[in-house]
Amino acid sequence: MSLTSTDRTPAACAAADFDGWMQAQLLRVEDALSRWVPADAPAGLGAAMRYSVLDGGKRLRPLLVLAAAEAVDGHAEAALRAACAVELIHAYSLVHDDMPCMDNDVMRRGKPTVHVKFGEAVAMLTGDAMQALAFEVLTPEGEVVPPALQATLCRLLSRASGCEGMAGGQAIDLASVGRMLDETELRDMHRRKTGALLRASVQMGAACGRTDGPAWDALSDYGWSLGLAFQVVDDILDVTQASETLGKTAGKDADNGKPTYVSVLGLDAARRYAGQLREQAHQALARSGLADVRRLAALADKVVDRQS
Amino acid sequence: MSLTSTDRTPAACAAADFDGWMQAQLLRVEDALSRWVPADAPAGLGAAMRYSVLDGGKRLRPLLVLAAAEAVDGHAEAALRAACAVELIHAYSLVHDDMPCMDNDVMRRGKPTVHVKFGEAVAMLTGDAMQALAFEVLTPEGEVVPPALQATLCRLLSRASGCEGMAGGQAIDLASVGRMLDETELRDMHRRKTGALLRASVQMGAACGRTDGPAWDALSDYGWSLGLAFQVVDDILDVTQASETLGKTAGKDADNGKPTYVSVLGLDAARRYAGQLREQAHQALARSGLADVRRLAALADKVVDRQS
Repeated sequence: MSLTSTDRTPAACAAADFDGWMQAQLLRVEDALSRWVPADAPAGLGAAMRYSVLDGGKRLRPLLVLAAAEAVDGHAEAALRAACAVELIHAYSLVHDDMPCMDNDVMRRGKPTVHVKFGEAVAMLTGDAMQALAFEVLTPEGEVVPPALQATLCRLLSRASGCEGMAGGQAIDLASVGRMLDETELRDMHRRKTGALLRASVQMGAACGRTDGPAWDALSDYGWSLGLAFQVVDDILDVTQASETLGKTAGKDADNGKPTYVSVLGLDAARRYAGQLREQAHQALARSGLADVRRLAALADKVVDRQS
Repeated sequence: MSLTSTDRTPAACAAADFDGWMQAQLLRVEDALSRWVPADAPAGLGAAMRYSVLDGGKRLRPLLVLAAAEAVDGHAEAALRAACAVELIHAYSLVHDDMPCMDNDVMRRGKPTVHVKFGEAVAMLTGDAMQALAFEVLTPEGEVVPPALQATLCRLLSRASGCEGMAGGQAIDLASVGRMLDETELRDMHRRKTGALLRASVQMGAACGRTDGPAWDALSDYGWSLGLAFQVVDDILDVTQASETLGKTAGKDADNGKPTYVSVLGLDAARRYAGQLREQAHQALARSGLADVRRLAALADKVVDRQS
């Protein structure tokens, strides 16, 4: 006799429910990205853009946008556009980050990196064009997304991407090669480099609906905690997993003399810290006062429990 | 006895009036950029951003935004932000374009290029951060710029910058090295590479006020003609002027085997073509039905008559 859903434990039901939700969202995002990243952009740019953003990646940022939007009963089209826009920013940053003048990485998501496949010049333009496309996706003509919401989404995304956010964090990261950062400096770097965009994902989803001040602050705190947890776990996986599992070159940060949570705290303390950040994320959700934060809670667990 | 303004010819008065207007706008733009490009962005990024965008450049795009906004009695704060945003996009494109994997240029506006001065990695991040900053500048909090106008400005700027605009044109440019384009292909490349952002400058200015459909179309046509004229003149200057006059390496396009209007049409025909495009720009302004298009007319003349 096969198990029916009524035979499952509540936890198993919740997990199955989350997995079903997640698969459905991933399909929506993949479909939308495939429509919005033009195949016919000139001189191979379309092919390189699609190569870099379709059929790969965990899509954590889009899932955060969509989960947050669901928690606030947000505007569906706006949330889908925000989900794709933030993924375009993330994907462009990887294309540029992999280039020889930055991390010089040849493998990403189990495939040759964009500059290996298409050349450095096309890789640079691909990243540049994808950043522009993110803001195009956020600003459709007419009223399909309320114009004031379009402006808010552009504001959140640009601030998280620029010199005070992601690009600034990458600059600190570059400048820190071969020198030891203390934990405060390391946290500042990661808050900018990965945390700002992860938090912006949550905020962009929240902006698609109505949130009062305390809910907004709580969701922002959730985004910070989750963002930092993501980076701590990344650093742990970089030393504990093989390249094949990660789909990118493992052990790279340590080889490059980059400070990581493992190098600063040690492996065991880094694992404990990831657990604390998961707890902080859950506490923030509890403070939000929102009725249904299941998806966001499950995403925090997923970030900490992931193996790749 | 010295000449007073009443002794001047009408043409001389108009020229003096335009120069006064232009100097005032350049000061406003320089001041605003200096406020909005943060000196304290981390790890040298602020210094590199300011180096690349302050104290240099003709500021043609900001002047187009401000002249168009004046012609439609547009929102002043929005126009100033649009002027700075489009200049940030232009400046970022130069930083990336000068890098070794692209044009590999070492001199720009009479100074070492950003990657020569700050290194390639910082140059890439500087460009990336300046693109994000352009959209930050367009989306201030609150109502200092009406949110719907913020969204429109982001839409116009992102479309002109991305794969169908500037980045796409640069990709065609790269792919065309060493092969002859016909005039149609050359025009398509330049419409994207430089024309799209110049036209968007006019449109962003126009969007800051009220324009009916015919005026919008006429201003857009003006932007196309001026944009193409700019490129034709650029190609002419590249072969007729010394590097010291241009502030960048002269003769570079020809040396790199890049097709130009001079290589495709010949120098005399290129000069005639620039004159025709100036005429088309003036005709478009006449069609716009706007009461005062003096600034835009003078800018078209300036683009064609410039010597650097």
